This record gives sequence, C-alpha cells and structure tokens, in this order.
Amino acid sequence: MTIMSDQQAAICKEAALDGSGLTAMLVNASLKPPSQKSHTDTLLDVVGEIFTRSNVAVDRLRLSDHLLAPGVYPDMTDHGWERDDWPQLSERVIGADILVLGTPIWLGEKSSLAQAFIEKLYAHSGQTNPAGQYLFYGKVGGCVVTGNEDGIKAVAASCLYAMSHVGYTIPPQADCGWIGEAGPGPSYGDEKEDGSGRVGFDNLFTQRNTTFMAFNLMHLALMLKASDGIPAVGNVRSDWDDGSKPGWPNPEYRLED
Amino acid sequence: MTIMSDQQAAICKEAALDGSGLTAMLVNASLKPPSQKSHTDTLLDVVGEIFTRSNVAVDRLRLSDHLLAPGVYPDMTDHGWERDDWPQLSERVIGADILVLGTPIWLGEKSSLAQAFIEKLYAHSGQTNPAGQYLFYGKVGGCVVTGNEDGIKAVAASCLYAMSHVGYTIPPQADCGWIGEAGPGPSYGDEKEDGSGRVGFDNLFTQRNTTFMAFNLMHLALMLKASDGIPAVGNVRSDWDDGSKPGWPNPEYRLED
Amino acid sequence: MTIMSDQQAAICKEAALDGSGLTAMLVNASLKPPSQKSHTDTLLDVVGEIFTRSNVAVDRLRLSDHLLAPGVYPDMTDHGWERDDWPQLSERVIGADILVLGTPIWLGEKSSLAQAFIEKLYAHSGQTNPAGQYLFYGKVGGCVVTGNEDGIKAVAASCLYAMSHVGYTIPPQADCGWIGEAGPGPSYGDEKEDGSGRVGFDNLFTQRNTTFMAFNLMHLALMLKASDGIPAVGNVRSDWDDGSKPGWPNPEYRLED
Amino acid sequence: MTIMSDQQAAICKEAALDGSGLTAMLVNASLKPPSQKSHTDTLLDVVGEIFTRSNVAVDRLRLSDHLLAPGVYPDMTDHGWERDDWPQLSERVIGADILVLGTPIWLGEKSSLAQAFIEKLYAHSGQTNPAGQYLFYGKVGGCVVTGNEDGIKAVAASCLYAMSHVGYTIPPQADCGWIGEAGPGPSYGDEKEDGSGRVGFDNLFTQRNTTFMAFNLMHLALMLKASDGIPAVGNVRSDWDDGSKPGWPNPEYRLED
Repeated sequence: MTIMSDQQAAICKEAALDGSGLTAMLVNASLKPPSQKSHTDTLLDVVGEIFTRSNVAVDRLRLSDHLLAPGVYPDMTDHGWERDDWPQLSERVIGADILVLGTPIWLGEKSSLAQAFIEKLYAHSGQTNPAGQYLFYGKVGGCVVTGNEDGIKAVAASCLYAMSHVGYTIPPQADCGWIGEAGPGPSYGDEKEDGSGRVGFDNLFTQRNTTFMAFNLMHLALMLKASDGIPAVGNVRSDWDDGSKPGWPNPEYRLED
Repeated sequence: MTIMSDQQAAICKEAALDGSGLTAMLVNASLKPPSQKSHTDTLLDVVGEIFTRSNVAVDRLRLSDHLLAPGVYPDMTDHGWERDDWPQLSERVIGADILVLGTPIWLGEKSSLAQAFIEKLYAHSGQTNPAGQYLFYGKVGGCVVTGNEDGIKAVAASCLYAMSHVGYTIPPQADCGWIGEAGPGPSYGDEKEDGSGRVGFDNLFTQRNTTFMAFNLMHLALMLKASDGIPAVGNVRSDWDDGSKPGWPNPEYRLED
Repeated sequence: MTIMSDQQAAICKEAALDGSGLTAMLVNASLKPPSQKSHTDTLLDVVGEIFTRSNVAVDRLRLSDHLLAPGVYPDMTDHGWERDDWPQLSERVIGADILVLGTPIWLGEKSSLAQAFIEKLYAHSGQTNPAGQYLFYGKVGGCVVTGNEDGIKAVAASCLYAMSHVGYTIPPQADCGWIGEAGPGPSYGDEKEDGSGRVGFDNLFTQRNTTFMAFNLMHLALMLKASDGIPAVGNVRSDWDDGSKPGWPNPEYRLED
Repeated sequence: MTIMSDQQAAICKEAALDGSGLTAMLVNASLKPPSQKSHTDTLLDVVGEIFTRSNVAVDRLRLSDHLLAPGVYPDMTDHGWERDDWPQLSERVIGADILVLGTPIWLGEKSSLAQAFIEKLYAHSGQTNPAGQYLFYGKVGGCVVTGNEDGIKAVAASCLYAMSHVGYTIPPQADCGWIGEAGPGPSYGDEKEDGSGRVGFDNLFTQRNTTFMAFNLMHLALMLKASDGIPAVGNVRSDWDDGSKPGWPNPEYRLED
C-alpha cells in the first residue's frame, strides 16, 4: 500500500494490535459528486488502512452519494419531506464502535454535508440504549480534515464537540489533517509541482497525528468494549424524567421531556 | 403589524428614513419544509417590516424550498451534479444591496442549509465587478439567529465573517437573535406557557438589537450607494494577477490566479 | 448541602460510586478578584460535591489568585518574564486524574484567564510520560460554563478540544453550564427576582448535564486508571523522532523535533 | 522599506490615497515580552507602512508591555484589583478611527492577551458617544493573524465579530495573515531554510489580503468621517431606556439598563 509511509507500516506491524470485533465507520463529507476523487478520501484511506491492518472491520460512507433531508429527526419523511436516505444509513453509523468524520474545509469551516451529518447524529439524541443512556455511549469518535486553506483545528473542535455532546467518547488527539501554506495551492495527495511526490504524504506532523488518532480510537474502543460500555451509573436519562413536561417538537426539547 | 412592538413602530416613524432605491434580501436557512412555520421567519419578519417602512424593497428566500447542489462553483451542473437551483437564485442574492442571513441554531451552530448558502456565496469569490473588485463589494450583510439552545454569538461570528470575507461590509451590531434559558423550551414567537403573549416579542435586548441591525444595514447601504461603492483603489484583484499561475480547481485557488 | 438538588443527592447515594484513588482539579477562570464571589464557582461547587461524595479527592484553583506570565513554555521566567506563578501550580494540574475547567462567558467566548490556562497546558505539549506518550494521556477533562449571555457550546467546544489536543480523553457529555434568556439578567446562583430561589438551581437541563459530566469523568478516569492509562502502542512520540530536525522555539515546533 | 514588496509600493504610489486626519491604532497581542521580536509585528509593519504612505497617523501598542487587570470595567482598580494599566491606554484605542488587532495563533485561537484586549473593548460597551450611540460607532476594525499552525479564519472571525458587536464597522476582507503548511515550521518573517528570503514575504495571498485590508479600512474610515459617523437614527440606546431596570453588575447587564 503506497498510501502509508514505511514508518506507519512499521508501527502497525510492531503494534500488532488486535481490534477484532470492532467496527469502524469512515464518513466523507466532501462536496464533490461521488464519481470525483476526494482529497479527504485520500487521508481517510490511511486511517482505514491502519484499522484494517489491526483487524478492525471498516465501513465507508460518501455523503454526497445520498440525500439527507434537512431536519433533526431520524426520518424526515415523517416530517414533511418526500425523500430522506438517512433511515437507510443510520444503522450503519449507529452500529459502528468507531466513527471518523472526514470533511474538507470551506471558508474555514466544515462542509455543509458534514453539518448535515451532525444534524442527523443529533436527530437520535432523544433515543437511549438498553441501559437508558444516550445512544452513542460506549462508542468513540474522531475526525479527519483536509483543505488548502486553514481551519483544521476550528473544524475539528466543532466536529469532536458535536460527537461528544451526543455521547461519543473522544480519545486523545482524535483529529488529524493537512493544509498547505496560506493561500491557494494543491490539496492533500495532489502531485507536487516539482514532481517529487504527493503533497502531504511526507508531512510528519500529518502522518503522525493520523497514526495517533487511529490507534487511540482503537485503544479506547477496545477499553469500552471490554467494560461493556460506560457504567450506567449517574448518567441515565430516566433518572431525570419525573415530572417531565410534554415534549417540544425537536430533539433538544425531547432531551428533557 | 403586531410583529413589531409599539416602541419599534415609534422609532421607525420618528426615523422616517428613506431607503428608496435600496433592495434587501432576507434568507431563511431553517431546516423545516417550506410548508412549515419557521421561528426564524418570525424574527426576519421584524427586520423586513422595518425595511418596508423605510421604503426598502424586500425580497425573501426560503432555502428549504430549493435544492442547492453541493459544491463551490456558481453552477454545479457544470461539475457533475444533475440539478442545482442556485443559478436561478443567485442573481436575486447578488443583486441585493442588503443581505440578511437568518438561521436556526442546531448543536450550537448554524444550520447545514446556512452553510450551503455560504458555500454558494463563496462560489462567486472568483468573480469581480466592473471596477475589478470582488463581486460583493459595496453591499452590506447582517444575520438573524434563533433557537432554544445557545449559540447566537458563535453563529453570528461565523456568518458575518463569511460575508465579510467575500466582500460584504458589516455595519456595527449587525446581528440579532433570541434564545431562551439553557435547555429545552419554547422558540421565538411561540405562545408563552402562561398565555401572556409570545416568547421573545417583549425581550428588549432582542428587539433593540434587531432594530439597531436593521437601521445600521440601511445607513451603511445608503452611504455605500451614495459613494458608488467602495473606491476601487488598493483593492483591485487584477493588480495581483501578473505572473499568475494556472488556476486550481476551486475558488480559493482561483483567487490567486 | 443545599447546592445539590434532592435528585442529585439521591443519584449520588444510589450510585455509591467509589472513586477512591482518583484526584480531581477544578479550575475557575473567573475574571473576578479572588475575594469576590464567582458564579462559575457556584456551579463548580456542584461538581466538587458529586466528586467528594464519590470519594474523589478534590483540589481547586482560582486563576485570578495567581499571575500566569504570557507564553507557551512551562516556566516563563526562563523566557524573559520576571514573574510566573505557573511553575508552582503546574504539578497540581498535571498530577490530577480529572481536570475540570470552569469559565465565564464574555462576548461569547471563554475568559482571557481560561485562554491563558490553556496556553499553559499547551506549554507542556513537548513533554512525555515514562511510556513516551504526551503528558496528559490517561487523564480526563471536562468543562463548566456560566454566563448571562449565550455561548456554552462554543466555549465548551473550544476548551474540550484544547484538552483533547494535548492528550486528555473527553468522556461523553463532558460539559455543562447555565445561561439565561438572551440579554442581560441574573447569573447562575443569583437570587431570583421573585424571591423564589436561586437562578439555575432548579434548571433540570443544567443539573442533569452537570451530573452526567461528573459521573462520566469518574467512569472514564477509573477505566483509564484500571488499564494503567492508554496502551503505549501506536501513539509514542519517539517513533517519529528519527531524522528529526533541530527544534523551533515553541511547543508546536517541538512536537516534531 | 524592504518590508513591502515592489508590488505593494507601486500600488500605494498609484493609489495616492490621502488619509490625512485619520488615526490608526495597531495592537499587537503577542505573548512575547516586549523586548523580543514578534512575528505578528512584522506583518503589522506592512499595514503600518501602507497607512503611513497614505498620510494616516499610526500609533502602536504592544499589549505584553502592560498589565491589563482581568475584568470588564473601564478601570478595574475600582473593582478590586490593585493595578490596571488600561485606563492609561484606553483613550489611545478609543480615539483612533481605525483599529487593527494583531495576534498570534495558539492552539488554533487568538492569544490570551488578545482576548483580554477584547474584554477591555467590551468594558466600554455601556458608554455612548454624544449622539447616544455606542462608543465605537463611526470607527472601523480589522485584524492581522500569524502563526505556524492553522487558525487565521477562526481567529479573524472571533476578533472581527467582537469589534462589530461593540460598534466597529468591518470593511470587506478586513483580515489578513500568514501560516505555513500543517505542522511545525518557521513563522512569518523568519529566514527561509534555503536562504532565499523571508517566509511569507513573497506569499501573494498574504500580501494581497494585507493590502486590501489596509485600503478598505481607510476607505470606510474616510467615508464614515465624511458622514460624521453613522446617522444617529434608529440606533440610539436611550430610545430603549424607558422602564429600565436597575443595572446588573457587568456591562452586558448595563446594556439594557
């Protein structure tokens, strides 16, 4: 695999981490039609390869391949929209132990498709697992950000916070990305102008962070799996349901009903 | 009009500001289908009413009524998507002297439709006006934010920055909004539980900020109109085009070519 | 203790969680002089009380009581400043298993003291633990936000991201806070105008989130303690040190040397 | 002056803009002691030079040279702190027609000194000009951001929003900055490793944005000066003071009293 550096391959080999039993969902919120190559995919490939070499089952989702109807309910066809592909996708996302959201940067922010995806996670914030915790408890989240303009940290803070808020655990250094020098220029994985290779592939900072993120996601996911999730003590929603008021028509409302 | 308070009506009357010749576009990025009432619209109504009483021509756009194809080019059907409604809408947005972006807050951020709209503004960042300035020079922007959870300032900072970055002038206090106490609850314009009126209508802070924003947008728009825009001195793109490199396939790239 | 509701007291009692051996540091970044009451402290008190009832040893730090010299090195007296209190404080922060950063909101953001504190965490980003991981690996972080204007989520996203970036693990729903309706008004713990109690004390959303955060911080801290931290596999800095270049004069530079 | 490129010098000469009568304050929020060279100063130098060549009187302030006591009142010695240098500085800032806030990026955000400076602007949010408008009406603001890690846009959005919120007008493209490729590396103005010049000096994107910002600040400042500020119509605070409640002890509270 040329997408990984020798260093990464050596680390994977030496680590010999066994993530059997774990599943990971890698989501790409590129604005490009599915038929076009996405730079974000190229960096997600590295994450996917590290997972695969550690026996984690990897699933991938290109958001631009689907229509997520606007709105913060699990199935927006119940709320006035004719079509919503999310109900066909949600199980794959909810079922994964590890979620990695990949997004390009536009005007310093995550893409509108990444925001739409987060709205969909949020749509499930009124649901609970069998222990009475929010649905995403016991799962871990990370994110991958690429662009030729700046914004990795701002975008990562936004994505990781959203995941944390709906129940994901965020491991250390759970974000990675690549951007170039201020201003226009090539994107991750483009050929260098001098023909000496592909942009970002030899950036130690980017590749180290990508590796750390991938391993930390696996470590925490394994730890949570071994503990059967987070103990349902002190964090159970029904403890707060007495005297509940009738629900308001959106998830944040429902949180308290 | 019951949407305005007596105070606002009195201020409009005493101001007697004549905005004839100005046009304003009020955009609503609510996630709700167009058939459903949007709380954001209710606050935009106040802005629209102040404009109308000052003889500003008001146009409105409900984004959920249209399909904005993902991507940062003016017409995404040239770039792989089958349908894109933006080309039919862009002239109304670009032609307006005043742009107000209204958005709900979801998980502390603007809606995915608001982000998609900003991507569309950005799509025109490679175009210039006859004086050689970016297309949105000489126009002014503001934003309206509603929600029952917090985030007015974070959302406003993001929206106003995006407008400023593509060329809009941002007047003082160009944002307004309403949110309730932390946690679930009614949204702007909902009936109060005690039946004493509608939520937010008597919030002096919200109504004052809305009024200030509307007037400041008109003041700056009139000032810029009287000056025939911003002098094309020191801010002309072609001054930087010598020695340009072939363009990269997105707007930020094109900025420099 | 009147700072906790009956519901919270009951949950603590029923949980009977034993956090013996864990230490927690609660930091308050209020701008007020130490002699003045801080609303942020009032909400931190709730967190502290939950920890105490679970046998977690609680330490507290009021930043305004100390002078953190500007700069991103562990001891700024080595870098041109005459006085820096951080070296006397850093061990208490670094030594804690759980870190909770409490901050007020000003103009929608965390306080300058909170930012200065984060710069101090960052100052240690070049250091590693005995396993070769970044110093804060194996520890967990959360945050508490209060204000009368909005911004809980924006502030929390910023604080939690910073912690995550330097090595903390972020449990689910690791933030809590209270704000009032848009505009000026009382702050957390102020007497209500109608004399019926103290503002925010009976806000189920605030109190539930505070409880969830406190318990999730303990659960993850216990889990990490039991595992002796995060396995030092795939996330060890020295794996990336071969061919290192001479360091640049700041921590982000050092990350790569 | 070698800090400006030939292109910038030519643009200034051809523009021949006369900003006589305008004053500009350039603030540097670098964390370094005043005795140490700041990369942010190097880019602020370019802005200052463009202003000077246009006959704008330039004042500069290095925040690390002073002690801004924590807190959101104009003079914190009235509120419990022993020393506060802000009262000696505030007139220079308030008196300037143009304010440019320069800041480094740390962990993706503006520096703690930049945040402290914004808290000081906010401290004056309860004051009005003779026309009854907020104190900063009629003035314009911009910002300069440097770092070797990413965050220009996030930092600029935050700084420009704060200025806008207290009354500044924000011209188009009122921010500029330089960052390098993701990861550690040289900062703006450092010698290039290959000895071919200084980093960022030949970055067309950075230098163009810096030029555009400087000119747009002058254009809007001149326009506002010619109009004697923004008309005091529809944006006067006392219009909202009837039935005011006793003030709360901080500026945001006072906004409404």
